[in-house]
Amino acid sequence: MAVDLAPPDPGSLFPVPGVELGVAMAGVRKANRRDLLLMRLGVESMVAGVFTRNRFCAAPVIIAKRNLASQRGIRALVINTGNANAGTGEDGVARATLVCEGVARALGCAAEQVLPFSTGVIMEPLPAERIVAGLAGAVADLRADNWAAAAEAIMTTDTVPKAASRRVCLAGGEVTVTGIAKGAGMIRPDMATMLGFIATDARVARGALESLVRDTADKSFNCISVDGDTSTNDAFVLVASGASGVVAQSKADLAVLEQAITEVAVLLAQAIVRDGEGATKFITIRIEGGRSIEESRRVAYAIAHSPLVKTAFFASDPNLGRILAAIGNAGIADLDVSRLQLYLDSVLVAANGGRHPDYREEQGAEALAKPEFTVRAMLNRGQAAATVWTCDLSFEYVKINAEYRT
Amino acid sequence: MAVDLAPPDPGSLFPVPGVELGVAMAGVRKANRRDLLLMRLGVESMVAGVFTRNRFCAAPVIIAKRNLASQRGIRALVINTGNANAGTGEDGVARATLVCEGVARALGCAAEQVLPFSTGVIMEPLPAERIVAGLAGAVADLRADNWAAAAEAIMTTDTVPKAASRRVCLAGGEVTVTGIAKGAGMIRPDMATMLGFIATDARVARGALESLVRDTADKSFNCISVDGDTSTNDAFVLVASGASGVVAQSKADLAVLEQAITEVAVLLAQAIVRDGEGATKFITIRIEGGRSIEESRRVAYAIAHSPLVKTAFFASDPNLGRILAAIGNAGIADLDVSRLQLYLDSVLVAANGGRHPDYREEQGAEALAKPEFTVRAMLNRGQAAATVWTCDLSFEYVKINAEYRT
Repeated sequence: MAVDLAPPDPGSLFPVPGVELGVAMAGVRKANRRDLLLMRLGVESMVAGVFTRNRFCAAPVIIAKRNLASQRGIRALVINTGNANAGTGEDGVARATLVCEGVARALGCAAEQVLPFSTGVIMEPLPAERIVAGLAGAVADLRADNWAAAAEAIMTTDTVPKAASRRVCLAGGEVTVTGIAKGAGMIRPDMATMLGFIATDARVARGALESLVRDTADKSFNCISVDGDTSTNDAFVLVASGASGVVAQSKADLAVLEQAITEVAVLLAQAIVRDGEGATKFITIRIEGGRSIEESRRVAYAIAHSPLVKTAFFASDPNLGRILAAIGNAGIADLDVSRLQLYLDSVLVAANGGRHPDYREEQGAEALAKPEFTVRAMLNRGQAAATVWTCDLSFEYVKINAEYRT
Repeated sequence: MAVDLAPPDPGSLFPVPGVELGVAMAGVRKANRRDLLLMRLGVESMVAGVFTRNRFCAAPVIIAKRNLASQRGIRALVINTGNANAGTGEDGVARATLVCEGVARALGCAAEQVLPFSTGVIMEPLPAERIVAGLAGAVADLRADNWAAAAEAIMTTDTVPKAASRRVCLAGGEVTVTGIAKGAGMIRPDMATMLGFIATDARVARGALESLVRDTADKSFNCISVDGDTSTNDAFVLVASGASGVVAQSKADLAVLEQAITEVAVLLAQAIVRDGEGATKFITIRIEGGRSIEESRRVAYAIAHSPLVKTAFFASDPNLGRILAAIGNAGIADLDVSRLQLYLDSVLVAANGGRHPDYREEQGAEALAKPEFTVRAMLNRGQAAATVWTCDLSFEYVKINAEYRT
């Protein structure tokens, strides 16, 4: 069902010196399934992350945030599928801690130097002992050229593994950026997690890396919507191993590196939407002429979250009044709708508060029949813009989410 | 498909002295269909209303608000189905004005004394001339005991007409409250309108009536959600004809009248949810122990709007982590999830940040298998509470909204 999304060619995924990946079958929820990923990081590594704002954040999120804040060098990331360890209270924190301790023993570091991540069903106890038992296999599998297997190991109901890679030249030499991700909360309720991990071998200072993870998240993972929720486990983590010896410190170098990380993150984020549950269309929502980025995003999300707009996209029905109604509903009290222009791809659909006289319904039907198209609204009240990527709402979405546990 | 909703018994709908209703077939969109309702109000009538906050509000909404504000006595309401006259710019205002002028000629009043309402497809020109031509039939049909026909005439894709009636005693004597409504924006995208009209023969001063319409809307039509949108045409209008000669002015009388109006409005609002597009369940969301009504409502709506929660309700799947995730996602930054308790009907499901140890999945499955149930969350951080009524998200919803115009 994924919209124009192929599995990555393993040869296109460049290893990142200083980062090794190992996968194993721990039997978290189902037997004979790669459900455990261990990432070992070199001693010079710097790590930064952004996490879900859901107040019911999962136990591993609590621990990962705490360990990141402690400023002890992070040596490993451990990710399991099959169980989100969310809605599990204090017991969940204790179980996630057992996993970190297991990793620490296996790799010879402190438990506080391990970041845990979980994805899968909510409100079930994490089988920490099975994960710990599975660690030996993951350690034995640790390799730098293991990104394709890692992308597969973190899949839950994703239909296609998601990975991307770039190499760019900084002043001090070439560096690599490689990342993997799995499907987003809105798409996969119980598998309640959007997880993204991107690593580079550039050497980046802590503060700069923290800015990079926030800024690149805002241009990628924070620009997607499948059904509007934020899961209990969402996380995006950026690792700078420093193993290339190439320092990214100057403004120019950081800009080049940010561009490469953004490209990888956007590919991963878009892949999540393309693989959205039941998705048959990939839609870019572009809002221009807003007074601020924030209000431009608000309008974009009002369109992207509207079930009415999304069912019309699914039906290829150019029922464009639904888009106008969503824009009018975005909470901008002083929006002058008579100044707004609405485009479907390059076709001017609405202006002066109503349908444009030259617009013909066949044009709208033609645009919406395509698997990918752009909805562009110009608010004409400022200079700010925002882009959001989303998918349609299909029978299949309801089917998957209604029957998920059966 | 409607959940436990029967058409009203016409005998249960008390006439409201001072209010006459006439319906006609104007052929707005389809022939041989009652699509025009005229309500003639006695000269002593006072009228107040609340309207959509959508910035793309429809032409009739613009005119109705303007005519209400002008403080000239309102003499008539005119409602057409088949065309919402929304997203139609200045031309839409001109066409709605033609309708008001037609009503004024037919009834011998000024056009500014007429409130127009439209519901139906968006972004199509209103056939004002056909509506004006149909007015003679509506005038000929004007009767006080015509509420059942009126409820049918404003239906679009509603499957059941919606009307309710009460009689209560004030100090000065008995008064009547009778109302009709049609389905909400979120449910019926193109038929983009929740319309509610309630009339009483009590005599109420303008300021008091304006308070009544706001307060009763907040307890009824503002407590429902099918899919989270606000349409371009939503309106709730309260008429006090004064024809009973009974004055509602004292605090006690106004409280009794407000209670009766609220009861009628709640029945109508719940009927809209029960008749929600594709609805198979009627769900009451009750949030208690909030710090304010506003945050309690925010949590209730976060649950009511979550496609994941709604598909789980449809499937009768007690996938309760989805409810916790929705609560955590309601934007209350300092919510302490460890203090929260979640009930399904009388079953304690979650406490201390996770599943309650006594809870068994069969209990949840049993509650969700019923056509009506209550989700109750106690935030334990204050004294405020809020209730929202909603329905599930079914295959049928997607089908209806995807195929609406085909």
